[in-house]
This record gives sequence, C-alpha cells and structure tokens, in this order.
Amino acid sequence: MLKIDVVLSPALLEYYDISGKVVVVIDIFRASSSIVYGLENGAIEIIPVKTLEECLSFGRENFLLAAERDGKVMPGFDFGNSPFSYTREMVEGKRIVLTTTNGTHAIDLAKDAYKVLIGSFFNQKAICDKLIQLGKDVILLCAGWKNKFNIEDTLFAGAVVQELRGKFQPEGDSAIAAQDLYEVYSDDMSILLTKSSHSKRLIQLGIEQDALFCLNRNTCSVVPVLVGKSLIV
Amino acid sequence: MLKIDVVLSPALLEYYDISGKVVVVIDIFRASSSIVYGLENGAIEIIPVKTLEECLSFGRENFLLAAERDGKVMPGFDFGNSPFSYTREMVEGKRIVLTTTNGTHAIDLAKDAYKVLIGSFFNQKAICDKLIQLGKDVILLCAGWKNKFNIEDTLFAGAVVQELRGKFQPEGDSAIAAQDLYEVYSDDMSILLTKSSHSKRLIQLGIEQDALFCLNRNTCSVVPVLVGKSLIV
Repeated sequence: MLKIDVVLSPALLEYYDISGKVVVVIDIFRASSSIVYGLENGAIEIIPVKTLEECLSFGRENFLLAAERDGKVMPGFDFGNSPFSYTREMVEGKRIVLTTTNGTHAIDLAKDAYKVLIGSFFNQKAICDKLIQLGKDVILLCAGWKNKFNIEDTLFAGAVVQELRGKFQPEGDSAIAAQDLYEVYSDDMSILLTKSSHSKRLIQLGIEQDALFCLNRNTCSVVPVLVGKSLIV
Repeated sequence: MLKIDVVLSPALLEYYDISGKVVVVIDIFRASSSIVYGLENGAIEIIPVKTLEECLSFGRENFLLAAERDGKVMPGFDFGNSPFSYTREMVEGKRIVLTTTNGTHAIDLAKDAYKVLIGSFFNQKAICDKLIQLGKDVILLCAGWKNKFNIEDTLFAGAVVQELRGKFQPEGDSAIAAQDLYEVYSDDMSILLTKSSHSKRLIQLGIEQDALFCLNRNTCSVVPVLVGKSLIV
C-alpha cells in the first residue's frame, strides 16, 4: 500500500526522504489557506520567495507584492497573508509574489520532491483526490511557527491521513498522532482557537477572524502545484 | 505562573531557550525507563555517553558497560537498555556507563539547563513533585526515534503537563497537543502498542514485553539528576 507520513516541523524534514514523493505543504494560519483561496479566485500564479528584498525586486508593474513577518503585513507591500486579501476583486487575473514567516520557507525546503502541492481545509477534498490520482507516497509537511510545532497544521495533516485511510498506510508515529489529535478536535475545530497559547497569539495579531475563516472546509476545488518557481493550478 | 513546554524531538531543542529551566529528558522505550529503574534498584550512578568507544574506555574493572543501537544490545557490552537488565540483582552497588540511540544524545543536548532530570512512567509522581519543589520553568524533552517524533515519549510529556495543571501553564502548542494526545490514550496506554508503526517496530526488535513493562506507573520514587557527567539520585 502507498505510504503517508507527517512531518511536524520544517526543521525535521531533513530526517525524511522526499525523493519520488508528493509533499503537501500546510500552513493553515494563513499562507497555504491564502494561496489556495487566491488561486481559486482567479490569480494567475503565486510566486513564493524567501526574502522581502526578493519580493520587492519583482516590481509593481506586473505583480502584486505580498509580505508577512510575525503575523503582520510588512510596510511597503500591497498586503500580507490574510485570506481576506485574496478575494476575486483583489487577485483575479493577477500575478502575486509572496513571502511569509513559515509557509514560503517550507515550500522552498520541499522543492526537490516529485511534486509540491499546497493544502488547506479550503481544498481538503481536492487535495485527497489529487493524492489518490498521483499514486505516489505522500509527506504532509506542517509549516509550524518558526520551526516549532503548531496544532492547526497538524490537525489538517490528521484530517488528510484519516480521509486517505485504506488507500495510504500511515508510516510514522507522527501520522498516527496527527490523526488521533484530529479526532479530538474534528467535531468543532474552533475550540483550538480557545486553547491558551493559540488564543493569545491570535488576539495579539488581530487575526481571529482570519483563523476562523481558515477552518472552513472544501470551499475551493483548486490544488496549487509548484511548477518551477511558481504556484499554479 | 510557571511555564511548561514540550519539545517533540531533540532536533527541535535549538528553537527553545533552556537557560535557567529544568529539562526532563524522556525516552520511554527504553533509556529513561531503565535509568530510573536502575537507580531505584541501587545502582550508584549511570554515566550517559555518546559513543561506543567512549563507553568501552571506562573499562570493566569498575563499571558495567551498556550499549544499545537501533534497539539492540551491541556485541561486546554487558547489556543494552532493556529495563530487565537493570534489576537489583544486576545493578545494586554498581556504576554503569550507558550509550543509546536516542536517550543519551538528548541528555547531552540538555546539559546547559539549570537542571537535567530523567523522567519515565516509573517515576511520574516523583518527577512532578520534584518540578513543583524546584519552582523553575520546565521543558519536557522527548528523545524520539532518530530525531523523529514518537508517541510514547509525547504521552508521558502530556501526562506530566496534565498532572501539573494549575501550577505550570502550558507554553506552546506542543504542550497542549501532548496533553490532548495523552487523554486519548490514558485509559489504556497499551493500545499504543497495537498501532501499526509501533507494533511493527517493537515486534521486529523483540521488545514488546519491555515496552509493556515501561508503561507501569509510579513504581519508582527516585528522580535521576545529571551532576557533572553522571546521573545520580
């Protein structure tokens, strides 16, 4: 049977062999959710880059420039990684260059995989269908928060492990634990926003509404894939 | 309130500040369980070392030499890290030098903390009492398996987070998730031995009985502490 595993932090990816596998990058709050939402809403491409300088170097003539650090939009950029900045009105027909604290770093680390896809609750079913269709072993890579574990990315990983049971065998303890954890929260995922470390961080950042929005499931049908340096559908 | 956090892999410890904090090293299957059991059973000291060569260099005149790699006793050593090798008959009055795949590495990484303690289900209550008495912030460091996450170490971390609620505030998402996960398994922890990735590994290694034994709770009252290069009580 095909195998599926979960990497709980980008800093742990080096201990996994990704060659020939499909890597799904997960950064629920908020980069992967916004990338899915933006491409669903008609953006032509989203180019993930590592630095603010690299982002600016694309110039405003042909691109929207998006930059987030520590949860905030960086001054001098068009927007950050709030999904509410990736509506059809904002992004349809546009090319976007994006740099974020966690998500774009994780995409870069995964680039030597067979394919790199972007997953979020918005496109959970579409991602699962795509993984079945591709028929390769899967690594679900949680972007976390500055290389530390976070719950929301792990919950999505667990949801995918659960949905693919019977077709993909969980490989490591992290895949099993992610599914266990998902089952704790699946009835009402919004309870994770009330858990202490989360609620503090989200309130401090003023992104509680973003976070709630990012828990909506299967509202998008696109599966962003990394082609060259660009995420497209 | 004092803070408690959980580090899910030794490879993630660099993202945490351990200065002035108490680090509890956890390697349930089996190094930390055997260290606790051996000191409870009258061993004078257990010296964790990194390499097989370093272990051998102590010589047999004054030491028992213990070495495990990949779950197996290394040839030429007195025993490995099975708790059944750390009975009173075997270790009372003895000095032991120990090198293992995961546990001794984690102890070495933690050595600059305010104090390094060794935790296992055997001494869960004793560890919690000691942490309350020390009155410092706490990091629970899961030794994992070759830098990958494992469930059993995380479950013990979650049990400690739960037991110390009200006295220590969970700091990060990993502390919250460890407690959530512990609550999934707490009624019957042996079910973790039936989960696929575990059962395969344990059967391959022939250590199912060791693993079941290591889930016994509060059978020991010692709290091993690192003093210089030696674990003592």
